[in-house]
Amino acid sequence: MKNNKLKFDIIKTKGKARVAKLNLNGKTITTPVFMPVGTKATIKSMILDILNDPKYTGTDKKIGIILANTFHMYISAGHKTVKYFGGLHKFQNWDGLILTDSGGFQVFSLGLDKRSSRNKSLVKIKNDGVWFRSPKDGSEHIFTPEKVVDIQGDLFSDIMMVLDVCSPVHGNDKKQTAKQMNLTHIWAKKAFDYFENKYNDLNGVLFPIIQGGLHKDLRLESLDFLNNYAWDGIAIGGVSVGETKEEMYKVVDWLSNSLLENKPRYLMGVGTPEDLLETIYQGIDMYDCVLPTRLARHGVAFHSSGERIRIKNSIHKMSKDSLDNECQCFTCKNFTRGYLHHLFKEKEMLGSTLLSLHNIVHLHNLTEQIKKDILS
Amino acid sequence: MKNNKLKFDIIKTKGKARVAKLNLNGKTITTPVFMPVGTKATIKSMILDILNDPKYTGTDKKIGIILANTFHMYISAGHKTVKYFGGLHKFQNWDGLILTDSGGFQVFSLGLDKRSSRNKSLVKIKNDGVWFRSPKDGSEHIFTPEKVVDIQGDLFSDIMMVLDVCSPVHGNDKKQTAKQMNLTHIWAKKAFDYFENKYNDLNGVLFPIIQGGLHKDLRLESLDFLNNYAWDGIAIGGVSVGETKEEMYKVVDWLSNSLLENKPRYLMGVGTPEDLLETIYQGIDMYDCVLPTRLARHGVAFHSSGERIRIKNSIHKMSKDSLDNECQCFTCKNFTRGYLHHLFKEKEMLGSTLLSLHNIVHLHNLTEQIKKDILS
Repeated sequence: MKNNKLKFDIIKTKGKARVAKLNLNGKTITTPVFMPVGTKATIKSMILDILNDPKYTGTDKKIGIILANTFHMYISAGHKTVKYFGGLHKFQNWDGLILTDSGGFQVFSLGLDKRSSRNKSLVKIKNDGVWFRSPKDGSEHIFTPEKVVDIQGDLFSDIMMVLDVCSPVHGNDKKQTAKQMNLTHIWAKKAFDYFENKYNDLNGVLFPIIQGGLHKDLRLESLDFLNNYAWDGIAIGGVSVGETKEEMYKVVDWLSNSLLENKPRYLMGVGTPEDLLETIYQGIDMYDCVLPTRLARHGVAFHSSGERIRIKNSIHKMSKDSLDNECQCFTCKNFTRGYLHHLFKEKEMLGSTLLSLHNIVHLHNLTEQIKKDILS
Repeated sequence: MKNNKLKFDIIKTKGKARVAKLNLNGKTITTPVFMPVGTKATIKSMILDILNDPKYTGTDKKIGIILANTFHMYISAGHKTVKYFGGLHKFQNWDGLILTDSGGFQVFSLGLDKRSSRNKSLVKIKNDGVWFRSPKDGSEHIFTPEKVVDIQGDLFSDIMMVLDVCSPVHGNDKKQTAKQMNLTHIWAKKAFDYFENKYNDLNGVLFPIIQGGLHKDLRLESLDFLNNYAWDGIAIGGVSVGETKEEMYKVVDWLSNSLLENKPRYLMGVGTPEDLLETIYQGIDMYDCVLPTRLARHGVAFHSSGERIRIKNSIHKMSKDSLDNECQCFTCKNFTRGYLHHLFKEKEMLGSTLLSLHNIVHLHNLTEQIKKDILS
């Protein structure tokens, strides 16, 4: 096993939950952490600096890591262009860490389009990689395990993901899921063999991705195989793909006893405040999800009560309440629900910005609260 | 003439140009000033606090006044709602001054729609006011000189405008323009009579608006009449309505010798960097224009060379240059043209935010440079 670049020091545990310091490329974050998603080198509607300014977040605890999407960067600006600009950090002016996904999930999403027969030949999974048509211009592309490492290297990613086959939970039998898992393992081996040769040329570390659907034996088989590659950390994939919350929590529970203690565990594409609360106590360290920003753009805000505020609802038109009076973010401290309602009714961009800020801060503060609980 | 609420102290003049301190409701700004337009209680895509944060503007000279549109606030949130929330300042969390226009220009715009026969009965100018249909829901409304004062009072406007008839420069003969000017005068008298009774109940001051199209005698007649109401300042209307720049500068030149020395002069709906440079030296003190933010949303940025940068142009895709390397704003200091190009190509909201910031700062800095020249 490679001498790890990523340092992961567990400070305190409480049951399966842990607080740890993660250090990589001279930058340190504390886990558990929620990573806001900056799909195309921008967290939609946000100036990144604001996310780490106590004036706007109401906390001096900084958000030290964000995510970017390999697939979307490949299709939009292009990895060669981003490399030319000195990598994603410089490109988007972010001095924290950046995790990039592998594109496996986006391929899965294109595959869903295929099944709905809207785009019959948008994606094909072959033994050596994934063939797909760009949803942008119809051009043809192939992602191989090696190419996806190269792309993420060009993006100057700090934490890279292997190309995987994300198994759907519906319309997939166990045999198919097993086949997809095995291909994920073959690709992981290829990716790590390739990565090992390039290791010293790259900034980043590489995480394998556990698949196996909702089948306990497959999930444990996948974990057992991929623990060999958990040099710097490991990810749980094939979640947030249509399963129920209970099913997702069960998958995490099956894995939780066999995950390596001293490596960070990343639950991909999760989650909601409830998901974080549940799975941090199952031993998960890292999260990402478009939910806080996507909900925000639709006028939906997290609330400390656990409910969601739909700000376009007419009951808020004359409300002088803040969005969440337990929240110290800029949005909650300075604006009424009535004003936010007005912005959304008039389709003013500022509405998305203010709600995105609040929702990201909400999840950030939730992890901070849970950390306090673990440390206490 | 009323004892003026607004204090206007000229510090220095250079030819017709002047630098002055304008104090109203406990707030002081220095003129000449460009007022960014916050149409519906938000400067599109901007957090207002950013506009006065040296980190983002690159200057400690603050933007102390913004504009809101009476017509749009009336049609959107509604003045009664804004009043319920404690006025526009509280509603949008802005502690600087706010100037509101009267709706005259928007009525003019609806009138243009009428002439193009798209919306035959969208607006009718009658002797006692303007009848119009809401472009939002087709409902019928009347703006009278008195009602427009009341609406602006409910908005807690600092500087209000009288309802005027904005004469188009095309498709209008001199007789029509004279008739519209006379109605503007009758309405101004009504507005000021009404305002005088309410004066002590209102935060704001009221400016009359000079009309008269491109006719020197009418313009001077209008100024002569309205100087009686220039208690706190005066506005030049009927510009930025399709005339050439030379015609507009000529109008200002005609008026410039007869405008009261010790009152601020506001050139409505102007302008471009060139317009500011030209007309400040003709003695204008105040400006507003949607141009910097509207251009920004279309990917067009002001540049210190006087040219405009069209960031969507493919020549910028691989450019590591800043938008304007003479500019100290957050956008120019932290991002390449290549990144900004990417944001616009991908229709990411952050592009509008970053270019709006730059364009507003550009005009702000231009007024600061001209002030220095006048003071030197």
